[in-house]
Amino acid sequence: MSAKLIHTNPGVSPDLVISEADYKPEPSWRTWLIGKPLSTADAPHQAIGKIVGLAVFSSDALSSVAYGPQEMLMVLAAAGMGALGISVPLSFAIVGLLLVLTISYEQTIHAYPGGGGAYIVARDNLGELPAQTAGAALLTDYILTVAVSISSGVAQLGSAYPSLVPYRVWIAVGLVFLIMLINLRGVKESGTAFAFPTYFFLVMILLTVGVGLFRYVLGSLGTVVAPPPLETLHTTQAVTLFLILRAFASGTTALTGVEAISNGITAFREPRSRNAGTTLVWMAIILGFLLLSITFLADQVGVVPSEHETVISQLTRTVFGGRGIFYLVVISATTIILIMAANTAFADFPRLSALHAGDGFLPRQLTFRGSRLVFSRGIVTLAAFASLLIILFQASVTALIPLYAIGVFLSFTLSQSGMARRWWKSGHLKPGEEVREPGSIVRYDKKWQVKMLINGFGAFCTAVVMLVFAITKFRDGAWIVLISTPILVMIFFAIHHHYKDLAKQLSLDEYAPSLPPSRHRVILPIASVHRGSLSALHFAQSLSDDVTAVHVSLDADDAKKVRDKWFMWGNGVRLVVLDSPYRLMLEPLLMYIERIIAHRQPGEMITIVVPQFMPKKPWHNLLHTQTAFLLRMALLFKPGIVIVEVPYQVQ
Amino acid sequence: MSAKLIHTNPGVSPDLVISEADYKPEPSWRTWLIGKPLSTADAPHQAIGKIVGLAVFSSDALSSVAYGPQEMLMVLAAAGMGALGISVPLSFAIVGLLLVLTISYEQTIHAYPGGGGAYIVARDNLGELPAQTAGAALLTDYILTVAVSISSGVAQLGSAYPSLVPYRVWIAVGLVFLIMLINLRGVKESGTAFAFPTYFFLVMILLTVGVGLFRYVLGSLGTVVAPPPLETLHTTQAVTLFLILRAFASGTTALTGVEAISNGITAFREPRSRNAGTTLVWMAIILGFLLLSITFLADQVGVVPSEHETVISQLTRTVFGGRGIFYLVVISATTIILIMAANTAFADFPRLSALHAGDGFLPRQLTFRGSRLVFSRGIVTLAAFASLLIILFQASVTALIPLYAIGVFLSFTLSQSGMARRWWKSGHLKPGEEVREPGSIVRYDKKWQVKMLINGFGAFCTAVVMLVFAITKFRDGAWIVLISTPILVMIFFAIHHHYKDLAKQLSLDEYAPSLPPSRHRVILPIASVHRGSLSALHFAQSLSDDVTAVHVSLDADDAKKVRDKWFMWGNGVRLVVLDSPYRLMLEPLLMYIERIIAHRQPGEMITIVVPQFMPKKPWHNLLHTQTAFLLRMALLFKPGIVIVEVPYQVQ
Repeated sequence: MSAKLIHTNPGVSPDLVISEADYKPEPSWRTWLIGKPLSTADAPHQAIGKIVGLAVFSSDALSSVAYGPQEMLMVLAAAGMGALGISVPLSFAIVGLLLVLTISYEQTIHAYPGGGGAYIVARDNLGELPAQTAGAALLTDYILTVAVSISSGVAQLGSAYPSLVPYRVWIAVGLVFLIMLINLRGVKESGTAFAFPTYFFLVMILLTVGVGLFRYVLGSLGTVVAPPPLETLHTTQAVTLFLILRAFASGTTALTGVEAISNGITAFREPRSRNAGTTLVWMAIILGFLLLSITFLADQVGVVPSEHETVISQLTRTVFGGRGIFYLVVISATTIILIMAANTAFADFPRLSALHAGDGFLPRQLTFRGSRLVFSRGIVTLAAFASLLIILFQASVTALIPLYAIGVFLSFTLSQSGMARRWWKSGHLKPGEEVREPGSIVRYDKKWQVKMLINGFGAFCTAVVMLVFAITKFRDGAWIVLISTPILVMIFFAIHHHYKDLAKQLSLDEYAPSLPPSRHRVILPIASVHRGSLSALHFAQSLSDDVTAVHVSLDADDAKKVRDKWFMWGNGVRLVVLDSPYRLMLEPLLMYIERIIAHRQPGEMITIVVPQFMPKKPWHNLLHTQTAFLLRMALLFKPGIVIVEVPYQVQ
Repeated sequence: MSAKLIHTNPGVSPDLVISEADYKPEPSWRTWLIGKPLSTADAPHQAIGKIVGLAVFSSDALSSVAYGPQEMLMVLAAAGMGALGISVPLSFAIVGLLLVLTISYEQTIHAYPGGGGAYIVARDNLGELPAQTAGAALLTDYILTVAVSISSGVAQLGSAYPSLVPYRVWIAVGLVFLIMLINLRGVKESGTAFAFPTYFFLVMILLTVGVGLFRYVLGSLGTVVAPPPLETLHTTQAVTLFLILRAFASGTTALTGVEAISNGITAFREPRSRNAGTTLVWMAIILGFLLLSITFLADQVGVVPSEHETVISQLTRTVFGGRGIFYLVVISATTIILIMAANTAFADFPRLSALHAGDGFLPRQLTFRGSRLVFSRGIVTLAAFASLLIILFQASVTALIPLYAIGVFLSFTLSQSGMARRWWKSGHLKPGEEVREPGSIVRYDKKWQVKMLINGFGAFCTAVVMLVFAITKFRDGAWIVLISTPILVMIFFAIHHHYKDLAKQLSLDEYAPSLPPSRHRVILPIASVHRGSLSALHFAQSLSDDVTAVHVSLDADDAKKVRDKWFMWGNGVRLVVLDSPYRLMLEPLLMYIERIIAHRQPGEMITIVVPQFMPKKPWHNLLHTQTAFLLRMALLFKPGIVIVEVPYQVQ
């Protein structure tokens, strides 16, 4: 019998039989909610072109014109109405930064056609710690993107319909749930769903800005009628450098989302890099124009930053002369684009978390594609955390903003530094030589010095912005991110340690099959003698000649009955009765098993055969002590034993 | 190999080895909370005498003088202040009923020295349905006893300290929890804990009544100063027969608890019946005297029934001339006795539910004695339901009263009918003849006709009261009990059916050991090839030559790796790869196993060997899909297969 344990069975051919399961999921409520399941073979058809790509990946960046300028003005307002004009030069500085970022990221997109998010670039060029830091920062910021965009969208809605304001938190959470559902359906369909509103917003906001500039040229623009009151602090602050830098930091939130395309290159149709790069440039041009013109017009019409009415709302009703149909259409479009901007995060967060998980820094389950070929667990995780933030911060954009952007600029810096390092490596290769890295192939590039300078400058600029942000916003909430990011990185490494450790312990590299057991000892706990316990007994006897039945006795009369019945039906197997004077069921049994484990001989195998009663109806479980279940839970953690469950179902 | 399955193993002697486990529970937070565990051998020492017995079993009955008269007055008040005087003749009627009950129950106690609650008497003499009905009614009423007594106790407290009224629900729930803890410590200690306050209450209430009667005789009693306003309805009702019967029904709530001693006879010291009977008579005399004198004095001093100040409070401050020290002591004693009255229910509910459970009409777990030798699960169940009622009815005695007492009188009726039937049986035996019934021994009694008449008259009176209660209180809440009692009885029978059915299916009466399996087929699901899955493979091969490893493939590359490794390490065992185009893990595997079960040959045994990964730390579970766990849950419900778990722990 022992020979069977490691040698090939003579009766079975060692052929590998490969069978195909024709299992297809049946329609259920999930089908109705997120669409019919897609087969893995359907995957390649889910790529998108430039037009849809602009909608999917730039709604975040473009929609941020709805809150970036506003938050900048909000900071300046602390120094009184006169300070608001500083916003115009600040917006030029922000657009300059946008230019640097766009050129930098254009280079990244071409260098990493397989997806060149900060995580991959940092991993391949800077090492594990910077990569995990970039990843932690980005994942945090995707969650914040959803929270901020949705909250701002609901704020736009509240400007037009103030009666909705008290319900803003639940409206926001409901919208997160809706976007989650759309994304669970899959990227192509969500792309189509998002293309129309994005372009609708673009047309409407460009129309508003165009009419505004035209009326400005004609001199008929006027100022905001009945603006909301200025919410100043008790004392008006002086216009300090700190205040200006703080306003600048708030304004840079308009640049969040610029990196989205570089993460999502693989979603584009071939030629991927080219399509993605073109989309990035288009997006940057539109974003820059909107930022400058909105800041300029807001200054001209005398917009007052306020939590009660958004800048876009004040500007639009001034341009169109009141809350007419045009006003309502623009506000609706802005609301929708903001709500849909969250979709950018829903496109990227699951991809990035799957990357982390694939490298073993997040739970492996995140790499699993759901029935619609999307990383459904990442999508649900994002929705859950974003909803939590919205509830905690009561859907207030101004409260959320100080947490936002710091992570984005941290990842910008790491990504650009990584790119600079990559060009340096590229410059030190011979022409025609290739170095294959996990995320891309490094080849010699004759313009490596220029490119390294560009990315290096980008890294410098974004590092400065990040420092400005961290310092000026520290007390408003940036400290939360400065604490949570290192904690996240630590968690990532703890997870990685676990997976590495496990792989090493399970590895077959130095594995020698253990000796066949010389003795197989079987223990059979029984509560009473009946058909269920006897079928377990028969199974136990088929395992080994050395079977011991164990009965825990709470009551001497019952124990007598069990002994008598066992004498009749026990096939001569020895029975051990454990007295339990304190009427405990599990503990004496565990103590007995532990004692047997402690006295185990070399090569002795111990198996516990547990008769497991399975009732016909689930409520019947309430009528039985779950001893078998509890016993199994306790035994699973004891090393070196095997648990056999012999279920007996009652019909 | 097959021969081993049913025959005695030659190597093992069929001796029954009996071992003693010296397992003693270790001290824990439970020890601190409810005392050190008691061994089963400690049980007989926990009996009580008459003095302690009166405290334990009559606090319910005695304390009900605090709400019985009040609720009677509350009903009469609907007909104006003039109608309140009707309470005095009504209280004579109630005391008359008490007399009938006491004589009836005295007979029961002697006939059933092993405990003669309505359940046992009805079961032995009337059959299963009346017995379960009596049990359902009593269990419901024990829960109500706790809710009403505690609520009334908190109302007394609120009379003295009105600022506590807003917190009454949570004070009440906290008190239920406290009494639960005391009872979990065990009956003797709870008896001692309750003896002092019960006697303290008796002394104080007798002093109050005595002083009141003395001042009445002297003519110096006076009337209530500043009574609470009369809470009349919009129109004053006429004094109809219906109103009088309704007031009578409310007053009879003072009789609840009279049966407690007959349920708890076994808690008494020997001679049990004699001690219990004497205690019952003492209790009835005290209760009757208090009922009459409190009703009489309340009428004399012009007490106004109110939710804001209790009758006891008004009476006491009139007797002692204000809210002085005596007043506070009497109110405190009343509060404490009411709170402790709930203890009667805590003494009886667990015993009665254990009886039901022992007969298979409630979950068997209720028969289990906890570490302190009490039926701890019954105690916790009672506390949970009583707390729920207190929360639902916001600790209002007047709202709870209509649900109360109807069940008690139903069980009184069934108990007395059963006793009458028993005397009839007794009269038809020959002198010296004995009939042994589960609850007692029936012997010939020459006075059987008189005794049958007494119990028959008791049954008649209590049936009339029950009908009066059900009709007059129907709309106030009695309907709830009239619906819930049959539902409870149905649940009891459903549980009984399950246990009977199960016992029949597991019975060995017509059992023939099945044929030894002619073929043993083993299926081994593997996710990948590593040390864990190989140790499961070795175990599988030790079971049978016919082992099939099954891999569900979500990804062609992974499947290739598994096949290659299996070729190296699989000992030539065949591998089936199931393609899963919809990326489902469990479903294709289950479909495969079901197909194998469907094609099972006669005598073929199927075993599934599941490698079960056990992480070092519980949080590591989050990093792994719980496929093995889900697979096991799905397989347990499939008949005729055995599940083997080979756990591999990572250190």
